[in-house]
Amino acid sequence: MSAADAKAQKRQKFEAVFAKLRDELLEHFAAQGMPEDAQKWYRRNLEYNVPGGKLNRGLSVVDTVEILKGRSLTEDEYFKAALLGWCVELLQAFFLVSDDMMDQSITRRGQPCYYRVENVNLIAINDSFMLEMAIYYLIKSHFRSEPCYINLVELFLETTYQTEIGQLIDLITAPEDHVDLSKFSLQKHQLIVIYKTAYYSFYLPVALAMYMCGIPHASSGSSGTDPYALAKSILVPLGEYFQVQDDFLDFAGTPEQIGKVGTDIIDNKCSWCVNTALAQATPAQRAVLDANYGRKDAQAEARVKALYEEMGIRGIYEEYEEAAYKRIMGLIETIPETPVAKPGEVVLKREVFKSFLGKIYKRQK
Amino acid sequence: MSAADAKAQKRQKFEAVFAKLRDELLEHFAAQGMPEDAQKWYRRNLEYNVPGGKLNRGLSVVDTVEILKGRSLTEDEYFKAALLGWCVELLQAFFLVSDDMMDQSITRRGQPCYYRVENVNLIAINDSFMLEMAIYYLIKSHFRSEPCYINLVELFLETTYQTEIGQLIDLITAPEDHVDLSKFSLQKHQLIVIYKTAYYSFYLPVALAMYMCGIPHASSGSSGTDPYALAKSILVPLGEYFQVQDDFLDFAGTPEQIGKVGTDIIDNKCSWCVNTALAQATPAQRAVLDANYGRKDAQAEARVKALYEEMGIRGIYEEYEEAAYKRIMGLIETIPETPVAKPGEVVLKREVFKSFLGKIYKRQK
Ligand SMILES: [Mg+2]
Ligand SMILES: [Mg+2]
Ligand SMILES: [Mg+2]
Ligand SMILES: [Mg+2]
Ligand SMILES: [Mg+2]
Ligand SMILES: [Mg+2]
Repeated sequence: MSAADAKAQKRQKFEAVFAKLRDELLEHFAAQGMPEDAQKWYRRNLEYNVPGGKLNRGLSVVDTVEILKGRSLTEDEYFKAALLGWCVELLQAFFLVSDDMMDQSITRRGQPCYYRVENVNLIAINDSFMLEMAIYYLIKSHFRSEPCYINLVELFLETTYQTEIGQLIDLITAPEDHVDLSKFSLQKHQLIVIYKTAYYSFYLPVALAMYMCGIPHASSGSSGTDPYALAKSILVPLGEYFQVQDDFLDFAGTPEQIGKVGTDIIDNKCSWCVNTALAQATPAQRAVLDANYGRKDAQAEARVKALYEEMGIRGIYEEYEEAAYKRIMGLIETIPETPVAKPGEVVLKREVFKSFLGKIYKRQK
Repeated sequence: MSAADAKAQKRQKFEAVFAKLRDELLEHFAAQGMPEDAQKWYRRNLEYNVPGGKLNRGLSVVDTVEILKGRSLTEDEYFKAALLGWCVELLQAFFLVSDDMMDQSITRRGQPCYYRVENVNLIAINDSFMLEMAIYYLIKSHFRSEPCYINLVELFLETTYQTEIGQLIDLITAPEDHVDLSKFSLQKHQLIVIYKTAYYSFYLPVALAMYMCGIPHASSGSSGTDPYALAKSILVPLGEYFQVQDDFLDFAGTPEQIGKVGTDIIDNKCSWCVNTALAQATPAQRAVLDANYGRKDAQAEARVKALYEEMGIRGIYEEYEEAAYKRIMGLIETIPETPVAKPGEVVLKREVFKSFLGKIYKRQK
C-alpha cells in the first residue's frame, strides 16, 4: 500500500468514528423529545461543520496515543482516542463557525460559511455553542468512570478559555475595518498565536493522549519536571512556528501550494510578515505599510507584497525556520532517548514531538 | 429594618462578592501578559453584562444554602455560595448577550444591548464565550479540592447544553421574521420553556446549593428517591409556571407593573398566550391570529390583544395559576415536613421550594 493510500485509509477509519458519535448525539437529542425539524437542524449543524477539514488536530490524538503506547491499539482504545480527536475537531468547529461570523467571511473549506447557509444566519451563534457542548456530552458518556475524566474536562475548558482570550486580543488588535499598525508588534503576534492557535492545535491533542494513556502529573514534591509542563514547553513553540509558517505561506505560497489565495494583507491580519516588516521598516517603508496594509484593493496589496520582497522577508523567514527547527529539536532532546518505563507504565517519548515537527518543517502547503 | 432595607442590604452584600470575582478574573488575565486595552475590554464586558439584572437566580443559591443549613453562613460559606450564585449570573449573561444578538434586540436592562455598544458589534460573540468560561475558572479556583467539584462542573455543562437546546427549538419555531403558527403548540411551548428557562433558572441554583452542602445522590441500589431527581421534579414545573406567568404578564401586565412594554405579540414569540388561544380558536379566530400575530404593526397587535380578551385568556390564566400552585404544593408535600438528618448531615427541606413558590405566586411584576 502506498503512503497516500495508507493516509486515506487512516482518515476513513477516523471518519467512521464521527458517524457513530454524530448518531449518539442525535439519539440523545431525539430521546429528549425534540421535534423532527430540530433533529434535522442539529444533524446539519454537525455534518456541515465538523468533518470536512484536514483533520490534522483530531488525527494527531490517535497518532500520539499509538506512539505513547508503542503498539497498535485495541478496538476500544482506538475508539476512545478517535473520540477525543473528534472532540478537538468539535472545538475547532465551534471556533470556526463563530470566527467566520465575527470576520464576516464568505467561504470555508470550499463551501459557504455556515452562517451564510439558507435560514441559518444568526442562529449559527447558538449552533456553535451546541458544537462546544457536544464535547462534554461525549466525554462524560465515554470517560465518566475513568480516572482521567476530570483532567480531560478541565483541559478542554482551559484550552477553550485560552483560545477565546487569543481571539479577543486578535479581534481588538486587528479589526478588519480599522487599520492601526501601531497596535502591531512581533510580541503581540506571538501572544495572539500562542493563545489563539498553539494551545488548542498542538498542546491539547497531545495532552489528551497523555491523559488517556494514564501519564500522571509530577507530584508536587518531586524534583522531576511535570510531563505536561514539558510537553507544553515544546508544543507551544512548535505551534508558534506552525503559525509563522502559515502566515509566511499566505504571502509566499502559490494558490496551488496552499489551496487558496492568501488574503492576510487585504484582511488587515496581524501576520508574522507585517510584524517582521514593521520591526525593521525605515520611516519611508513604514509610510508605505500605513498607506497600503489592510485595504480592500489589489494594487495596495501588490505594493505591500513588493515591499516584503524588497525587505527580504523570504530570507528572514528562512533564517527563522532554521532557527525554530534547531531550537525545538533542542527542546525535544531534553527528553531521554530511551526513556525508562516500569511495565505497563506509559512515559513521554521524543517521537511524539518529532512526528509533529517532521510534518511541519519545510512544509509547502 | 424594613423588609425593603433588608432586601437592599442582601443585594449589596452579594454585589460586593461580584467585585472580588471580577478582580480575580482580571488579575489572572493580566498575569498572563495580556495588553492593557484587552484588560479594559474584558473588564467592560464583565461590568456591562453580569451585574445589573434582578439577580434572582444568583441570590437564590445563597438563600437555598441558608435554608438547607438552617443557620446563617460563616464568611467562607457565604463567599462560596455567592460565588456559585455569580456563576449562574455569568451563565445568564452569556445567554443574554448572545440571545440579544440573535434576536437583534435593542435594549436590555434599560441600556443598549451589549453588541450595540460602540466598537463591540460581532466581538460580542467572543465576549459572550468568555463570560461562559469565567464560570469554570472561578469554580476551579475555589472548589478544586472539594468533593463536589466535578458535580458542579458537570451540572453547569449539562445545564448549558439544555438551555442551548431550548434556544434552538425556540429559534426555529418562532423566527422573528417568519410567522408560521402551525409550528406552535402548548406542547412545543412547554418543551421550549423547560429547556430554555426552567433548568438554568430554577433547578441549577438549587442543585448547586445542594452539592455545596454535601447532599449525596441516592446510591443506585437504594430504594429512596434521589434528592436531585426530587428537586428537579418540583423545580421544572415551577420554572414552567414562572414562564407561563411571564408570558401572561407580557400581555396583561401594565408597563408600571412589569417595568417594560410587552412585545411578545409583535416579536412572534411562542408565548403561552398565543398557544392557549390557538388551542381553542375557531377557524375565524385562527384566521385573525394568522393575519395579525408577529407583525411589526400596533394595530395588528391590538387586534390580537382584543382576541385574547374575547377568548378569555385572563380567566384561563387564573385557572392555570390556581392549578399550578396546587399541583406544585402537592409535589412539595411529598418531602417530609420534619426531615430526619443525622448530625452534620444536610437534607432537602420543603422550605427551599416553598420560598420559590411564595415569590412567584400571584406575582404582578
Ligand atoms: Mg477568520
Ligand atoms: Mg478571526
Ligand atoms: Mg493563515
Ligand atoms: Mg431575546
Ligand atoms: Mg431569543
Ligand atoms: Mg417574557
